[in-house]
Amino acid sequence: MEQRKIVLADSEIPRQWYNIQADLPKPMCPPLHPGTGKPVNPEDLAPVFPMNLIEQEMSTQRWIDIPEPVLEKYLLWRPTPLCRAINFEKLLDAPVKIYYKYEGASPPGSHKPNTAVPQAYYNKVFGIKRLSTETGAGQWGSALSMACAMFGLECRIFMVKISYQQKPYRRLMMATWGGECIPSPSDRTQAGRNILAEDPDSPGSLGIAISEAIEDAVGNKDSRYSLGSVLNHVLLHQTVIGLEAQKQLAKIGENPDVVMGCAGGGSNFAGIALPFVCDKIHGKNISVVAAEPTSCPTLTRGPFAYDFGDIAMTTPLLPMHTLGHGFVPEPIHAGGLRYHGMAPIVSHLVKEGIVEARAYDQIETFTAGVKWARSEGVIPAPETNHVIAAVVQEAERAKQEGKEKTILFTFSGHGIIDLAAYDAFLSGKLAQHRLSDEEIARALKGIENLPKP
Amino acid sequence: MEQRKIVLADSEIPRQWYNIQADLPKPMCPPLHPGTGKPVNPEDLAPVFPMNLIEQEMSTQRWIDIPEPVLEKYLLWRPTPLCRAINFEKLLDAPVKIYYKYEGASPPGSHKPNTAVPQAYYNKVFGIKRLSTETGAGQWGSALSMACAMFGLECRIFMVKISYQQKPYRRLMMATWGGECIPSPSDRTQAGRNILAEDPDSPGSLGIAISEAIEDAVGNKDSRYSLGSVLNHVLLHQTVIGLEAQKQLAKIGENPDVVMGCAGGGSNFAGIALPFVCDKIHGKNISVVAAEPTSCPTLTRGPFAYDFGDIAMTTPLLPMHTLGHGFVPEPIHAGGLRYHGMAPIVSHLVKEGIVEARAYDQIETFTAGVKWARSEGVIPAPETNHVIAAVVQEAERAKQEGKEKTILFTFSGHGIIDLAAYDAFLSGKLAQHRLSDEEIARALKGIENLPKP
Repeated sequence: MEQRKIVLADSEIPRQWYNIQADLPKPMCPPLHPGTGKPVNPEDLAPVFPMNLIEQEMSTQRWIDIPEPVLEKYLLWRPTPLCRAINFEKLLDAPVKIYYKYEGASPPGSHKPNTAVPQAYYNKVFGIKRLSTETGAGQWGSALSMACAMFGLECRIFMVKISYQQKPYRRLMMATWGGECIPSPSDRTQAGRNILAEDPDSPGSLGIAISEAIEDAVGNKDSRYSLGSVLNHVLLHQTVIGLEAQKQLAKIGENPDVVMGCAGGGSNFAGIALPFVCDKIHGKNISVVAAEPTSCPTLTRGPFAYDFGDIAMTTPLLPMHTLGHGFVPEPIHAGGLRYHGMAPIVSHLVKEGIVEARAYDQIETFTAGVKWARSEGVIPAPETNHVIAAVVQEAERAKQEGKEKTILFTFSGHGIIDLAAYDAFLSGKLAQHRLSDEEIARALKGIENLPKP
Repeated sequence: MEQRKIVLADSEIPRQWYNIQADLPKPMCPPLHPGTGKPVNPEDLAPVFPMNLIEQEMSTQRWIDIPEPVLEKYLLWRPTPLCRAINFEKLLDAPVKIYYKYEGASPPGSHKPNTAVPQAYYNKVFGIKRLSTETGAGQWGSALSMACAMFGLECRIFMVKISYQQKPYRRLMMATWGGECIPSPSDRTQAGRNILAEDPDSPGSLGIAISEAIEDAVGNKDSRYSLGSVLNHVLLHQTVIGLEAQKQLAKIGENPDVVMGCAGGGSNFAGIALPFVCDKIHGKNISVVAAEPTSCPTLTRGPFAYDFGDIAMTTPLLPMHTLGHGFVPEPIHAGGLRYHGMAPIVSHLVKEGIVEARAYDQIETFTAGVKWARSEGVIPAPETNHVIAAVVQEAERAKQEGKEKTILFTFSGHGIIDLAAYDAFLSGKLAQHRLSDEEIARALKGIENLPKP
C-alpha cells in the first residue's frame, strides 16, 4: 500500500510567513501615486487599509510571525494534506510523480481563507468594525465572510452581478456566514451609479466591483477595504501553503523538479511557489510555472507596465503584467482567473525569467479536470483545472523526453459550487475564446499614457 | 495553542471493519422472505447482491479484512481528521469537550463513500458491470458514481424526482463522475410506470426509487443493486469512522462520555457508534445517542416491527423501527433522514436499551448549524445539523448538572450543496412539522398484517 498523503500535526504548522521581498535579486518597481506619479507612502494607503497591513505590504523582512489567534483559526483546516495523485499518474502513464497540496480542505473550499483570516484579524486589532471587498466567482467573498464571522467584524461584499445571478450558492454561503452580499454595479456607490447610468443592464466586472468596495470602505474610521489577491501582503499570507509543502516533502525526502499553480491575481500560485522560488534564487534547479487562461492571458500576452488595479482608476499604479484596467475578459467559468492584471511580485518574477507562464484554454482544462475527478475523486474548481492541464502537458513532455520528473502543484479548491460549468462541458456547450492580437492591442490603449516602469 | 485536530498517518488506517454481530448480547431477528415468511437464504438475495456482499451481510465474524484495493481508495481522503470544536465549546459556555469526526473531507462531501467504494469493489470482483441504486438528497448517488468511476463500473441512479429538480448540483456531480441519473418515478421500470399511471406528477419518494432500482438491477447477470444504508454490510463498512476515532482518542488519552450521530437509515450513526457500543457491551460507561428529525421519527415514535424496505414490497421483511413502508415524510431539507425505516442493527440496539434515540425539529437543527458555521467554519449538511442540535442539548444538560462531559460525534457531511436550505432558514421560511399520533397510526396501518418479531 503506497502512501498517498503526507500529513502534518497541528504542532507542525509553520509559525511564520515567508516574504520574498528579502530575497529578490533585483528590487521591484514601487507602486506609484496616480496623482503625483511618485512612490506611494504608507499614509497614502491609510484610508484604505489598516496600518499594520500596510507595514506588511511594504516590509522587506524575510520572516513574519503568524499571530497566535490567526494560527488558532488556521488550525480549523490547516495543515492541509500533501497528496500524491497515484491514480492520475497511472492514467497519464508518464514517468512522473505528482504531488498536490489540497487547499479545497478549507471550509469555503479554497485557498482564500489563508489571507482572509489574517486580514480580518489585523483589521480587528486595529479597531476596524467593518470590511468591504469585492468578489468575482465568490470564493474570496465567502472566505472573508467566514473570517469576519470568526473575529466579530461586519463584512460587505460587492459581487460581480453576472456571478451573483449565476452562482446563487456562493452568495448563500456568504449569507450563512453573516456577510452582506451586494450585486455590483449597485446604487450604493458613485462608481456603481455611474456605470448603471451608462448601462442599467451592466453584468459588472471585477474592476467595477473593486471600485465600489474601495469607495464604500474609505472615509469612515470604522471601515476598511480588503483585497483577496494581487497585493504583497496577500501573497505573503498564502506562503503558508508552500512552507507546509516543503515540510511535507522533506518528510519523504522528495524534491520537486517542477512547481505549478494556476494564476488569476496570483495569490494561489504565489502561495505554493514563493518558498520554492527562494530555493531557486539560491541555486536550486527547479522550474516554477504559472498556468493562466488563454482568454485572460495576463502573463503570456500582456506587457509589464504600470496600471490601475480597478476600472475607476482609484488604486495606486501597480507595476505588473496587465491587459489594461479596462479589459473585460469573456465570461469563462474560471471566474477567479478573470483579472486584467497580475500580482506585482509574480509579474516581477516572470519579467526576471525566474517564473515561467503558460496559457490553457477552457476545453483542455475541463478535459483534464474530468479525468482528474474520475480517477482521484475530488472535482476540481475550474481555476484548478488550469494547473491540472499544465500537469498533463508536463507529463506528456516527460514522456517524450524519457525523463523522470517530480511535479508539485497547488490544488486551489474544489469545484462543488461550479458544477454548472461541468454540465456545460459534458454537454458540449462550453465556449472557447482565444483573444486576437487586435483585441489585446485595443485593450492596452487605455494604459498608453501611464508612467512606464 | 491548543491542539484542534488529531490526524492519523496513512499507515495508521484501520485494516479491518468491525462487525457488531459478533458481540450482540441477544441475537437479532432474521430478515424474512415475504413469500414464505421464513428467514431469507443467501440464494434468495443472489439476484440482487453479489454473493461476496451477501456473505458479509450474514457474517458473524468480529473482524473483516478491508481489501487492499479498497484501502487504496480510502486513502484518497481517509483517515479523516478528529477535530476538537474549541470555538463552539466557547460559544456554548458549558463544561463540555466536543470532538467530531469530519466525514465532509471525502470528495462527495459525506460519509457515503466509506461503503460505496467497497460495494463497487466487491461487485467488480464478482464480475458485475453495472450497479443500480436510488438516491434521495443525492449524497449516496454521488458517492456511488465516484466509486464506480474508480473501479470502471457503470452506475445508474434513480433519484427522487423532487430532489432531482430541487438539487441540480447533486445530479451534475453524479454526471461529472460518469453516473447516469434518472428522475424517479420513471418509465424505465414497471414500478415507476405504475406510479406514473396513478399520478403523472408524483414527486417520488425513496421507497419508490428503491423499487425502481431493484427492478432495474435484477434479472441481468451483469448488473446488481446497491444500497447506501440500512443493511448490515453497509453499517459494517462505515465502522471505519469509529475505529479511526478510537485510535485518535487513544493518542490524546480521551474517553468520550457520549457518542452521537444523526440517523436516517442508520449508517452514519452506526459508523461512529458501533465500535463504542462494543465497549459499552463490555462494561464501559458510555451513552450512545442517535439524533433523528421529528418529522420522520422512526426510532422515537415508530414501533419495532417487520416491514418492507420499499414501497413496492419487493425487499425481504426487515426487523426494524418503522413508520410503515407507505409513510412519506414531509419534504424537510435533511433528505438523508427521510427514510421510513431504520437499520435493523440500530433498531435492535435501541430496542435493547443500548442506544438512546432523540428527535429534533428543523428549526432547532438549523439554529445550531448556523452557530456552528459562524464559529467552526464548516457549513454542516442539514442532516449533520441534527446531531449538532443534540450536542447543544447535551451541553445544556451538562451545564445544568454541573458535570463535565466529553462528547464525540460524527460530522456526516458539509452542506455546501444544501445552501438553499440555509437561505430558507435565514429568511424565516423554513417549515416545521410535528407528526400527530393520528398520522403515525394511519401510516402504520399498512404493516398490521405482516409477521411480528
